[in-house]
Amino acid sequence: MAVVFRHFSLLSPPPPPPSPSRFPPPRSSFVRSAASSPSRSPSPASSMEAADKFMEFPHVSAPHRSLMIGLVSAVEERLGPQLLPCALPHDVRYYQNDAGSARGSLHVRRGQGSSKVDFMLGSWLNCQLPTGGSLNITSLSAYLNNSTDAPNFLFELIRSSPTSLVLILDLPPRKDLVTSPDYLSTFYEETQLESRRQALEKLPEAQPYFSSSLYIRCVVSPTAIMLRIESEAGKAEQLDEIIESHVSPVAREVLGIWLDKCAAVDRNVDEEDGAYLERRDGITKRKTIEIDLGSSFPRLFGPEIANRVLDVLREVYGV
Amino acid sequence: MAVVFRHFSLLSPPPPPPSPSRFPPPRSSFVRSAASSPSRSPSPASSMEAADKFMEFPHVSAPHRSLMIGLVSAVEERLGPQLLPCALPHDVRYYQNDAGSARGSLHVRRGQGSSKVDFMLGSWLNCQLPTGGSLNITSLSAYLNNSTDAPNFLFELIRSSPTSLVLILDLPPRKDLVTSPDYLSTFYEETQLESRRQALEKLPEAQPYFSSSLYIRCVVSPTAIMLRIESEAGKAEQLDEIIESHVSPVAREVLGIWLDKCAAVDRNVDEEDGAYLERRDGITKRKTIEIDLGSSFPRLFGPEIANRVLDVLREVYGV
Repeated sequence: MAVVFRHFSLLSPPPPPPSPSRFPPPRSSFVRSAASSPSRSPSPASSMEAADKFMEFPHVSAPHRSLMIGLVSAVEERLGPQLLPCALPHDVRYYQNDAGSARGSLHVRRGQGSSKVDFMLGSWLNCQLPTGGSLNITSLSAYLNNSTDAPNFLFELIRSSPTSLVLILDLPPRKDLVTSPDYLSTFYEETQLESRRQALEKLPEAQPYFSSSLYIRCVVSPTAIMLRIESEAGKAEQLDEIIESHVSPVAREVLGIWLDKCAAVDRNVDEEDGAYLERRDGITKRKTIEIDLGSSFPRLFGPEIANRVLDVLREVYGV
Repeated sequence: MAVVFRHFSLLSPPPPPPSPSRFPPPRSSFVRSAASSPSRSPSPASSMEAADKFMEFPHVSAPHRSLMIGLVSAVEERLGPQLLPCALPHDVRYYQNDAGSARGSLHVRRGQGSSKVDFMLGSWLNCQLPTGGSLNITSLSAYLNNSTDAPNFLFELIRSSPTSLVLILDLPPRKDLVTSPDYLSTFYEETQLESRRQALEKLPEAQPYFSSSLYIRCVVSPTAIMLRIESEAGKAEQLDEIIESHVSPVAREVLGIWLDKCAAVDRNVDEEDGAYLERRDGITKRKTIEIDLGSSFPRLFGPEIANRVLDVLREVYGV
């Protein structure tokens, strides 16, 4: 999520609060309910609607939506028996600002009892830009708990215009790779992740993307796929073709590697290792929230909604 | 040095051992002496010649040479009183293969007594390519000891053709930045290193460079300048202009930051921190040597010279 929110800083200057006249009032009854009531006790109907809303990915192109649904489904199908149902309040499962110019959805399922999964977290955000376009950010991440030291999973697509995309796809390591060459070898060299990175990097429309947050650069692995992909002006369909033919297969492969080689593998984690993981994961998560708080998220959604979402994230992250 | 030797793998296929007829015998008396005698007891004359040889940087363009001499001189002027004279054997200060198609020079000065400097290490390499061109690699690195946890310094220029260059310029961190946000802030954010990276990255001739070694990618910082710079075909002078007008000022600035903010600053390193640094530095150095051994260096220089140089490096690195 840090990476998601951080990317609002891509927008410069930050979008001012839009005037109500430019944004029509929300149309669905759920959206009205979520926007007008701060209550955390949803009716069964709105709760159901909020749950559906996440998997709708309603503001993105068909290939983008199809990719996200495919990834979330793959995780839920494979890890489903280990995961508790999503228990988020409905006004965090779906939220929008008062002006109706920005909206988002969160989906969190925690691992249960003996699972190695700490939680999976899906998210989408849509916001109208003052320039008339819109920004869409979708993400899926999965964190393991300290019964294993295997890497986490991170996927994000940030579409800041019809012809411009930022892609982040990685298995962020949970140890210092400089002092853990065996870990580097097991999870990054033997899995051939670099070949996937190179497959996308060589696209003529792609160029390396550097996060504005130095901390985020440190958190990712040496095979992290961090790319800006741009199609020719006016050729949005070219970007969607790239999502369908290039990004989707690589994202599915990398997720497959994570499911097979990380989430499903027993690792020897003794007490000392477990304490180290707890400390390192904790710092990463705290720093993540801190970066979120410093971002444009509160500006977009207002302090009430921003705090509500961040409070839930803090609870999920356990920080 | 790992990065230096590793870059031989840029050359694909690796250059075969050249036939003696293609490479004229060496002309200087020193070169003949070094090539024909394995003795490590140089005469005063050849020792002097070998020492001079390093600062000659004899096979690179004037701007490239000027940059290297400037950087080495800046370190020696500033840290000179803390450094012991170079005590390398003459056949490591300057070495070449039997065919005379590859040659190199090493220059090492260790820190003395109370200095925070472990050692500085300069190097150049030149080798004729089967295609008729030549490869030139020059580097300067400086390692601090475990009386401080401040970052090291690393600079390398790899010119694989008159119109193609790889630049590596970094202050490699000595702690896991994920668990050390304050360290990240002190040495990488407050020093504005990112602005230097961006200044070079935005050159139209530059593109990000990814080392083929995942370990090297882990060792560098999030503001590491790792670029491939290419001028138009036939326009070698364009690349030299870039070295002079862009690379040199940034390299001098980054070295200045290292001299002011890393090498000259007292840091609180307690016993536990010192033991951690010793362990982490040790792993980095051992891994560095291992990467060197796995590279094309022995193929270029033959096992005898390669082992001689690597033995000296092992001793310098203390691994």
